Amino acid sequence: MVVLVNPQMGENIGTAARAMANFGLNEMRIVDPRDGWPNKRAFTTSSGAHWILDNAKVFATLPEALKDMNYVYATTARPRGMIKEVLTPEQAGHDMRRRVGEGQKLGILFGRERWGLDNDEVSLADVIITAPVNPAFASLNIAQAVLLVGYEWYRITARTLGQETPELPALAGPGLQTPDSRPATKEELYGFFEHLETELDAAGFYKTAEKKPGMVRNMRNLFSRAELAEQEVRSLRGMIASLTRAHLRKREKSGE
Amino acid sequence: MVVLVNPQMGENIGTAARAMANFGLNEMRIVDPRDGWPNKRAFTTSSGAHWILDNAKVFATLPEALKDMNYVYATTARPRGMIKEVLTPEQAGHDMRRRVGEGQKLGILFGRERWGLDNDEVSLADVIITAPVNPAFASLNIAQAVLLVGYEWYRITARTLGQETPELPALAGPGLQTPDSRPATKEELYGFFEHLETELDAAGFYKTAEKKPGMVRNMRNLFSRAELAEQEVRSLRGMIASLTRAHLRKREKSGE
Repeated sequence: MVVLVNPQMGENIGTAARAMANFGLNEMRIVDPRDGWPNKRAFTTSSGAHWILDNAKVFATLPEALKDMNYVYATTARPRGMIKEVLTPEQAGHDMRRRVGEGQKLGILFGRERWGLDNDEVSLADVIITAPVNPAFASLNIAQAVLLVGYEWYRITARTLGQETPELPALAGPGLQTPDSRPATKEELYGFFEHLETELDAAGFYKTAEKKPGMVRNMRNLFSRAELAEQEVRSLRGMIASLTRAHLRKREKSGE
Repeated sequence: MVVLVNPQMGENIGTAARAMANFGLNEMRIVDPRDGWPNKRAFTTSSGAHWILDNAKVFATLPEALKDMNYVYATTARPRGMIKEVLTPEQAGHDMRRRVGEGQKLGILFGRERWGLDNDEVSLADVIITAPVNPAFASLNIAQAVLLVGYEWYRITARTLGQETPELPALAGPGLQTPDSRPATKEELYGFFEHLETELDAAGFYKTAEKKPGMVRNMRNLFSRAELAEQEVRSLRGMIASLTRAHLRKREKSGE
């Protein structure tokens, strides 16, 4: 699933669709497109990849767009000083291949034209993809970034299957079978984030308003790195609940 | 050396320059640009890769543009039914790396927007590069084709040197030292082609005018595959000379 975050120009949505079509990526999600949707210019520049645009789904916020996904890659031009693993497109291609084989549902985030993804958006992803590019001239447009990631996905899948033009699986797998050990969806993970952050806020954990955003990001990055299973997310929420109000309320109720 | 053959729109020359800059490819040659040169639109779309456009060299014909090169890659979207080796961008990256290490001067041909390179142009190259692309949607624009080839060149060079952001050698090496065994330049090779074809024509080898172009291409492909050394080209020309008029003239002179 290719997720375009807050794209500004319809032309770039179209050229991104074209690059997706080149490598058998068919599912596009668009978060908060600046010029609304549908966008005629996107169709003009897509060189005929209309089926991708026709089926594109639009979301108001990034967390909503990622709800049903198990694993999310964020593409960035530069390292972000976050404690988050950074993959090359090649490594990402191998990783995607493996996860799709396991039935995971994957998302790849591409930022807006001007400044890419912001740090809060990156912190919602599990891992970063950065292409090796001439540091003196590192600017890639959206379609070019999609092209490089799509190329590696296609190349590595073709090699794995031993086919020159592989029957490509969708980046969205059939869904995972065993509920307990399956990777958490982003909806479950973000629900946990919200729970945790609300409780930490109530507990006065974030000393100042200025410090809060950075502290939130660090915590999200930490838990994203852990690749939590659904069962683990429930356990963590259970822990928070017992450590905080739910616990207090219970105590009050039982008259302890 | 990136060689754009008969590009139609300045915009595409600019985006190709941008993709070159991303991967440290700095030398551009342009054959017969439809809208002349310099072209303002190219500068607009190059995202600041002006030094490449400022230094681009323009040629009237493809053979002239390739004169000083030792090895030439032709990018094509589809196989051409020619007996010519086809490399993936990845294989080409390894091959380029090795040849640059030996001091060879390399060229990579990219065709015009509408129909790419024609068969005669492809027959001037040593080998074909075709990217693995979804066969149902195989169209790549010039900049995207440059991007994929440049990406592989950069990625493989970085890995070979064990550097994340390598000091990239130019695709034009310092030139080769031993004149006898060095690979022939394209000027030498094409001189031989012309010599051979003129003599074959005079000898009535090409039975009909319709058959000639295909026969010429097949012959050129055959000799291109051989990766002739400069010494071998001279030997071949010597052979032709002794087999034909020069030989006859000598016979007449000596009165045999």
